[in-house]
Amino acid sequence: MLKEKILLIGGGGHCKSVIDVIESQNRFEIAGIVDKKECLGQKVLGYEIIASDDDLEDLINKYKYAVITVGQLKNTDVRIALFENLKRIGFELPVITSSRAYVSKHAQVNEGTVVMHDVLINAGSLIKENCIINSKALIEHDAIINENCHISTGAVINGGVIVEKNCFVGSNVVTKQYITIKENSFIKAGSLQV
Amino acid sequence: MLKEKILLIGGGGHCKSVIDVIESQNRFEIAGIVDKKECLGQKVLGYEIIASDDDLEDLINKYKYAVITVGQLKNTDVRIALFENLKRIGFELPVITSSRAYVSKHAQVNEGTVVMHDVLINAGSLIKENCIINSKALIEHDAIINENCHISTGAVINGGVIVEKNCFVGSNVVTKQYITIKENSFIKAGSLQV
Amino acid sequence: MLKEKILLIGGGGHCKSVIDVIESQNRFEIAGIVDKKECLGQKVLGYEIIASDDDLEDLINKYKYAVITVGQLKNTDVRIALFENLKRIGFELPVITSSRAYVSKHAQVNEGTVVMHDVLINAGSLIKENCIINSKALIEHDAIINENCHISTGAVINGGVIVEKNCFVGSNVVTKQYITIKENSFIKAGSLQV
Repeated sequence: MLKEKILLIGGGGHCKSVIDVIESQNRFEIAGIVDKKECLGQKVLGYEIIASDDDLEDLINKYKYAVITVGQLKNTDVRIALFENLKRIGFELPVITSSRAYVSKHAQVNEGTVVMHDVLINAGSLIKENCIINSKALIEHDAIINENCHISTGAVINGGVIVEKNCFVGSNVVTKQYITIKENSFIKAGSLQV
Repeated sequence: MLKEKILLIGGGGHCKSVIDVIESQNRFEIAGIVDKKECLGQKVLGYEIIASDDDLEDLINKYKYAVITVGQLKNTDVRIALFENLKRIGFELPVITSSRAYVSKHAQVNEGTVVMHDVLINAGSLIKENCIINSKALIEHDAIINENCHISTGAVINGGVIVEKNCFVGSNVVTKQYITIKENSFIKAGSLQV
Repeated sequence: MLKEKILLIGGGGHCKSVIDVIESQNRFEIAGIVDKKECLGQKVLGYEIIASDDDLEDLINKYKYAVITVGQLKNTDVRIALFENLKRIGFELPVITSSRAYVSKHAQVNEGTVVMHDVLINAGSLIKENCIINSKALIEHDAIINENCHISTGAVINGGVIVEKNCFVGSNVVTKQYITIKENSFIKAGSLQV
């Protein structure tokens, strides 16, 4: 099967993890990475930085698909701005799901979201646009993760929890069932949310 | 292969997760759900609530297998009463194991226990009757989980630990090796047990 | 395919977990276990203790491969001494990786290290000699684990972290990104490292 080409937007550490996921998924061929002008020609795991943000309006003539590979720690603004810009230009932002992740057929994941290795998304849950569900995270039954959230490595979002938009949920966080995490929250790694 | 039919006892949130596991296992066909009379006709992930607890004595004439899909938080009484009632009537309560879970061939799991997605049960361990080993939980080598326990999502039961009967071990709990968790314990999510 | 024979050095609880991993890997046939003289003839999961440490100089004439199956809690000295002795005698200490683990093709794992069930080692990371990466541990992108470390069950080593040599990182520990854990550290189970 001929694979479709995809652009990676952002060449840092998170980009490496996403490359590994895209390779595992075996659906897309990585066309190259878009980053700052001064990084042009550098490589990440063998893939070249072929363009900068200024070139996106031209790149749409050549490539249909893009995935945001900028990470998200304290601030969601960069990933939100990139998402809006890529959509405005006309890129499609497919769901990228690791071949090692499990998404229940009774769950829904929306565009621009990346589901990393060993993630489990259980029945009845909904993941909205432009999220990172990072390695080994668990989204239990009936949970809702709203737009632009990063559920970090190993975090456990228990049944029926609602994570409002633009949240950072730290690594190995665990939540009680059926709670709500408010918009723009920064939840510290390893903490218990009740 | 013709799949055998199974009844699900309890139609709440945990039921959704168990449905996902049964579908993944591909051994049983879900005959329907048993819940309160006032819920008759309602559906859970497309499966109908076809009977109430009062009908169980009749249902045994039609169905051989049942699985308890009521969850367990503070109190194990409901699951214990259901288990005893179902056994008395004559139902078989098979072990339900997700196709994504791993149970060592050197481990043993007893009837009525459900092993959810991404669980790992290591060599030399024993899980007794009527337990929930929930998503992504880890039961290490030589651990013993006694009857009617719920080992919640992401919990880590380390090597040689004994969990006595009727315990709730919260989400993402981690235990030291070779400790004993006493009968009827409620272990808070995210805590360290030493 | 004819499997090559391997000796297991140490017959305790960790040995059981490693046996399960070797069986899953299906590359080596377990020739037997080496432990104390007074344990000769005892069995672990059906494999016999066939020799004691004093016999290693003779066993090299019969077996090429060995794996250290002694666990590591407070002290790394035993595993370091065993590693050096086995190397001196001439044994090869292959990487043992569970069929359920994932090691990115962009990662590197060195000799004598055992990668247990459900471990995830992500792109750009490096695991040096004689480590235990225990069940369900996560080593994120660009992390470096130096010699003789035990990363315990369910621990999360986040992106770019350096764990210096001879460390014990407890079960379910979570680290911030890009920190360094100093040589000979003992990191308590369930703790957050920032």
